[in-house]
Order: sequence, then structure tokens, then C-alpha cells
Amino acid sequence: MAFSNTTLTRPAPAALSGALEALAARFGNHLITSQAVRDQHAHTTSWLPPQPPDAVVMAQTTADIQDVVRICAAHRVPVIPFGTGTSLEGQVNAPAGGISVDMREMNRIIAVHADDLDCVIEPGVTRKALNEHLRDQGLFFPIDPGADASLGGMASTRASGTNAVRYGTIRENILALKVVGANGEIITTGTRAKKSSAGYDLTHLFIGAEGTLGIIAEITLKLRGIPQSIAAGACSFATVKGACDATILAIQTGIPVARIELLNAAQVKACNAYSKLTLPETPLLLLEFHGTEADVAEQSRLFGEIASECGAGGFEWATRPEDRTRLWQARHDAYWAVKNLRPGAQGIATDVCVPISRLADCVVETEDDMNRSGLEGPIVGHVGDGNFHCSLLLDVDDPAEVARADAFLHRLVERAQAMGGTCTGEHGIGQGKQKYLEGELGPEAVQAMRTLKAAFDPHNILNPGKILPA
Amino acid sequence: MAFSNTTLTRPAPAALSGALEALAARFGNHLITSQAVRDQHAHTTSWLPPQPPDAVVMAQTTADIQDVVRICAAHRVPVIPFGTGTSLEGQVNAPAGGISVDMREMNRIIAVHADDLDCVIEPGVTRKALNEHLRDQGLFFPIDPGADASLGGMASTRASGTNAVRYGTIRENILALKVVGANGEIITTGTRAKKSSAGYDLTHLFIGAEGTLGIIAEITLKLRGIPQSIAAGACSFATVKGACDATILAIQTGIPVARIELLNAAQVKACNAYSKLTLPETPLLLLEFHGTEADVAEQSRLFGEIASECGAGGFEWATRPEDRTRLWQARHDAYWAVKNLRPGAQGIATDVCVPISRLADCVVETEDDMNRSGLEGPIVGHVGDGNFHCSLLLDVDDPAEVARADAFLHRLVERAQAMGGTCTGEHGIGQGKQKYLEGELGPEAVQAMRTLKAAFDPHNILNPGKILPA
Repeated sequence: MAFSNTTLTRPAPAALSGALEALAARFGNHLITSQAVRDQHAHTTSWLPPQPPDAVVMAQTTADIQDVVRICAAHRVPVIPFGTGTSLEGQVNAPAGGISVDMREMNRIIAVHADDLDCVIEPGVTRKALNEHLRDQGLFFPIDPGADASLGGMASTRASGTNAVRYGTIRENILALKVVGANGEIITTGTRAKKSSAGYDLTHLFIGAEGTLGIIAEITLKLRGIPQSIAAGACSFATVKGACDATILAIQTGIPVARIELLNAAQVKACNAYSKLTLPETPLLLLEFHGTEADVAEQSRLFGEIASECGAGGFEWATRPEDRTRLWQARHDAYWAVKNLRPGAQGIATDVCVPISRLADCVVETEDDMNRSGLEGPIVGHVGDGNFHCSLLLDVDDPAEVARADAFLHRLVERAQAMGGTCTGEHGIGQGKQKYLEGELGPEAVQAMRTLKAAFDPHNILNPGKILPA
Repeated sequence: MAFSNTTLTRPAPAALSGALEALAARFGNHLITSQAVRDQHAHTTSWLPPQPPDAVVMAQTTADIQDVVRICAAHRVPVIPFGTGTSLEGQVNAPAGGISVDMREMNRIIAVHADDLDCVIEPGVTRKALNEHLRDQGLFFPIDPGADASLGGMASTRASGTNAVRYGTIRENILALKVVGANGEIITTGTRAKKSSAGYDLTHLFIGAEGTLGIIAEITLKLRGIPQSIAAGACSFATVKGACDATILAIQTGIPVARIELLNAAQVKACNAYSKLTLPETPLLLLEFHGTEADVAEQSRLFGEIASECGAGGFEWATRPEDRTRLWQARHDAYWAVKNLRPGAQGIATDVCVPISRLADCVVETEDDMNRSGLEGPIVGHVGDGNFHCSLLLDVDDPAEVARADAFLHRLVERAQAMGGTCTGEHGIGQGKQKYLEGELGPEAVQAMRTLKAAFDPHNILNPGKILPA
């Protein structure tokens, strides 16, 4: 037994060759059919087996996306949008074949409106490229999922990451989209106004839809001023519960923590080994505060008080960049530290999210379950949001281990859902989590989603086989 | 000429009497058909003429809503959800007749989860009742549209108000909904997890849909801790531009202002006359800061510096409740002060919202237009969001004045849209703004909205005649 994907019915060979012919005529050498490039577009960071598309179009303009969609619609051939391929649940796989539309060359920053704290960009702009561009104007875009993902991909998977506790997820940071619908027309979902009550919320309809309702061609994002001062802190606790209690109190008190990350003992141990650190091998909180110098000092002082009430073993904080870097080193290297525990093993990053009052229970029960199951998977969490990742390591060629992991993953999701949480805080459903959707929201919600899909994509050509179970 | 409403085709008399018979059998004296009560359910704060329903059901439970919808669906009779009747664009009118479902007795607070900063409530709970209930736990719900609206109504119109600059609109403060769909089934849109990437965003689909896609039966809201300290400030400027520049700088600097409200000279003059104040009759900013004592002092200090850079005539601030009350008196009384200018006149509250860099232009051009048009309408604005209200006063029995007002309202919306803004920041489309939707978002977006409506309410029984032009 190994992890597997659903395969869907492929288009008839004549339909596919008709589409490829029309695409070749329209796109010339921006249409690529080499096996290597096709494989590249399914070779992602996902733990799911790759399913390459039949061809790739390197889109340059919105009109290109429209033409791909129109040609594919005419021949009933699937279209799969592709950003940087850093999605984790098989979102860019092509289970029915079809055409991958690569957005990496649609990477123009169309406008930055500094006074309005917004910008308009193409979907292929990556997070780091955007922040590089903004820095000189004293602005930044706060959503940081770790990977240097494209903004189109982040919008499509409803991404978040370490800054969400203060700045929200990408859902709260998009003002408007231009989206190419299944008929090739462009839908404008909003304006640059900071808020609006003008009709149905089309913006949020497409955010998190994983390209199954339309393809994002332009994004208007909210920006922030780079804080005057940034301070970081680290704090060890005897128990996960102590760390979670400190987090809850900090949030209730209204401390506007910018980042608050939990590393469990196993993760700290992995970091010590990999990064040659000597952190106490107990649960650790890493924090970042943003504001004026006075703000940051006050936030740090308040958090220090809370942490010691919750049994922390000392709170260390720093405003100097080099000290911040040292403190966050463990977090930045967490992924490599885990990989280093078992070179060659497949990593599976889970992302359940629970109400914060249940986080300690969920993490501790998950640690116990992992131990009982003979599995290894250090835990890091966006603890301010109740969201944590268990980085499971396993040998996918060992059927017994895969079976134990599969059962463990099911129990993890069921545990989170039973606590009022979700199977996915930030990675999306893709192919990997379809089986959990009905258990989370009920059959009526899944039916409502099917209604949406059928209404917006009646021929099921937009990224088929994602989100909704076949 | 007077303002008028579209009338839609009413159900056949046999269909209506069939529905009423079934409703009477099911609801007994919770079904009310008296003219007085029917009139009450169309007599709202809107400037649009009332269109009463054929009957009212006082819903007590979600099952009641389900049964009203099922009976009405079977007979093809409209269902109009009713909260407190404080909507402004005719949202509770019954242009095709039908049954008003009154939610005021569905006002239970089902659960408060203090550690998670969330609560679960029925849709008839009002903003003030909720905050009253939460106060002892040190919590509050920040969205304040002025009126003591029901949370179901606020969700349905995507309401916001004075606190949105810091806490977001109701859109950012709802975690999940239970919604009765057009077939009477209950759709659960989310969990209590703070974030999720699990499938399509059904929560935001129903927020702002004005009851046209489903009827909200339960709401899970985000809450906040009551700030340790609250300070208020007031600041006069020579020009609207000075006030707007100070606001832009404050936001760019990242000062987490809780409220920042603009009163134009005409509004300050009205407030002086009504509230016996002696404020300088120039543009005024009213501010509120939330945080610890140190935070609030720092925010006030920073804002004071910015204000004087922008030509403010002195910044007065206060942390004592009685001083705060005095400073905010003018804002709280703004509505009555305006009404007092011309007793008996009809007020029309506009709510365009523009990118903040265009706000000064939009306000000044609107003041000029009003003067040229011989109209009167003081302006108050949620200036941190670029959203402002012009409280137009007019004699609806004077056809010439109505015609001038109608032309002015059109120009105001077109001005805001041309600046990249929206026709409605927080009141919704209802009946009054349908003609502006296509100009704002284009025909493709309106078509996408029609697709949504047809998919979720194929027989057009849920609040027909709202949002989408006939």
C-alpha cells in the first residue's frame, strides 16, 4: 500500500489533440509539451503522487489565460492554474490530464498606491519579489506561508502562515480580483475601496477555490507600513499547556503579537541537533512584536509578565536584528531540522486548526498518538490561531508504516474536527483532504459547494478533481 | 416626481392563500396578518416607500425558519427576513408581497467561549444586548453601525461603522453561519477554528447577501477583550484635506486608531446648534484609541505630532470617561443635529467609500455639488476607511427638489466609482442602489451574481427584488 490519487476520465484523444492544435496555433513556443516540463508541473512539494498535465502554456497576459480557457472549454479539456508549485495537497496535479497554465511570467507589479496602502499585481508575483519591490516605499505585505509562493497560488489556497495572528490570512488582505471564468470572460470582483456592501462577495468566492471556479488574473492587495521597530522573544515552558495558556492570555489581553510560534519538545530537539543550539528541550514559544519602540517595549513587558504567570522558564527578548535572527533561527530551520532526522524520508505536513482553548489538548493527544503509532513527526504551530503542523516522516515504500501513518492522519483530523476545528487551516483541500470535507461541514455544505461548482463551471474544465469528492 | 420602488409580480392569490393556510396551521398566533404589524415590517429607516408583506411569522427556532421557507417554497411565495428594520436601502420591503420572518424573538446567546474569543448567537440578538451580556466577562463585539441592529441584519448587509478602521467590518468578524437554504435545509458554513482553507467560502457567500441566497439562523462571532484603557481626542483642521492627510499618515504609521471620524464644517455647525457646543466650525476629526494606558498615551502622542504637521488647530485628548463622552457627544448627536436643521424633512443617508487618497477630493467635490444644487446635507465620515455619509435633507413632496436630489445622488455615486470606490461602503444595495451595481463591477460580475442567485434560489423566493436589477 502507498498513498494514491484518484484518476479521472481523460478527455477523448480527438478532443485533446484538437485543443493542442488550437493552442499551438495561438501560443507558438509558449505552449510546451516536453515530458520534462510536464513532469515539472506536477512535481510539487505535495506528498501525493504527481499527475502531469498534457501540456503547459506560459501565460504572459490576461488575454492568454482567456484564450487557454476558451480553447479548452471548446474541446472540454481541463485547465489547471500553476503558480510556483509549492502547494501541499496536490492542487496542481492533473488527474484528468489537460493544460497547465503557468503564471510565473505574469509577474508584473501593476501599481502601488502608497497612500491607500494597496497594490495591484499579476498572479505570478511571488511574496518575496513583492516585498523586495515594496521595501523602499516603507511598505510590506504581511502574509508569509514560508515558501516563496506566488500571490495567485496563495489566494487560491487561502494561505496564511506565521503573521496571521496579527494581520489575518490572505482572505483578509485581498481587496479585489480579476478572474477569468469558465466561459473565458473576465469577472471584476471589487474595487480599491477598503470595504463595500455592493452585492455578493465574489472576491471571497474565488479566494480558496483552488482555481476550480475561475482563474485569478489580477489581485488588489492590502499593504502595511513597515513597523518602526521589531522585537523578537523566546520562552521555554515545562508543558505545551503552559505555552498555550500564555498565548491565550496574551491574545485576550489584546497584545498585538505579530508572530507567536510553538515548537514542541521533539521539534526543539531536532533544531538543537541541526542548528547546533542548546535550547532546553521542552515546549518553546517564539514571538515577534511590531510597533514603535515604546509599543514593542510595552508588548514585550506585558508578555513577559504573562509568560511567567504561566510557568515560563524565562523570557528573552531582543530588538537588534542579529539577536532576532538568532532567536528565529530555530524556527526558520525547522523544516530542514526535521528532514535531517531521517534523510530520504517523505515528509507530510498536516495543518489542522482548532479553537485555541483546545490547542494544548490537541497537540498533546497527537504527540501521544504518534508515539503509540511508532511514528515520528515534530510539531510547530501558529499557536495564536490554533493551527499546527505535524511534520510526519515516513518511508513510503514500507506499506506497514504507510498504513499506520494513514490511520494516524485520519485520527488527527477527526480529533481536530471533534474539538470544533478544521482539517485544514491553510493548505487547502486539493486532492488530499476531500474525504474530510463532509465530516467537517455536513452534506448540505458539500452540496452547496457542488451547486457553486456546477453553476460556475458546468463542464467541469477548471482544475477538475480538486476540493469536491468525485 | 417622488422616489419610487419597483413592484414585482405577486404570487397568484390561490398560492398565497394556500401558503397562509399552511402557515396558520403550523404557527398559530405566531403568524400575524394584521395591517398594523404588516406595515410595521415595511416601515423602516429607509428613504424608500414601504412595501408591506402579506403576513409576518415570529420565528422562535431554526426549525420555524425552515418550515416558513418550506411552506413558502411549496407555494412559490416570497420570504423576507426581518431583524430590527434599521436597514436603509429597502432591504425588508416586500415588492412582491410574501411572508416577513421576524427574528426578534430568536435572540438567545447560545454560547460564549471566553478563551477562544468567540460566541454563538441567534440572529435576532442585537448589538447592544450582546455587549451587555459580554461586559462582565471583559469581552466585547466591536462592530458598531450606530443603530442597535440585529446581528443577523448586520451580517446580511455586511455592516460596519465607526470601529471598522481597527477591527474590520462584520465580514472579518464572523467565523461561521448556519443558514436555511431555499429548500429549507440547514447549511453549516464553517467551524470555530479561527481560519480554514476547507473548500469554498460559504460564510462570505451569505454575508452581505441580504437574505437573497439563504436565511441566517445562527452566527459564530469573533470577540475582543475590552481594552484596559480608552482615550478619545478631537482635532480641528482648516480644510478637509488637512484632516484626510492626518488620517492617511496615522494609518501609514501603523497607529492602531480604534475610531477616526470626520465631521465637515456643516456638520460641526449643526452639532454646535443642536448640542450647544462652541466647536470651531471647520472640519473636525474625532478619535478613539484602545490599549493599555501606555499604548494609548503613545498613540495619542504620535497622532498629536501628525495632526500638527497637517495643520491641525490643536489636539485635545482625554482618558476619563466624562471627557470622552463630551468629546464624542457631537458625533453621537450628529443624526439629531441634522434632523434639527429642517424638522419634517426626509433624510437620505448616502454611504460611498473611496480609496483614502481620494477622500478629500470626493468630500470637497460633493460639498460643492451640494451647494450648486441648492441641497443641504452635512457630512460625517468613517475617514479611516474612506467611507462617508452625506445626510441629505429634502422635502419629498417637492418634485423639483427630489429631481435635484436624485441627480445629485447619481453624481455622487459616479464620482466615487470614478475614483476607484464603491456606491455602498456599509448600507448594501437593497432596492435603492441596484442601478449602480453594473457601473461599479461590470456586466460580467452582475452576471456572476445572477448565476449565484439562480443556483441557490431557483424559484426566486428568498427576498426577491433585492440586490439584482429585475
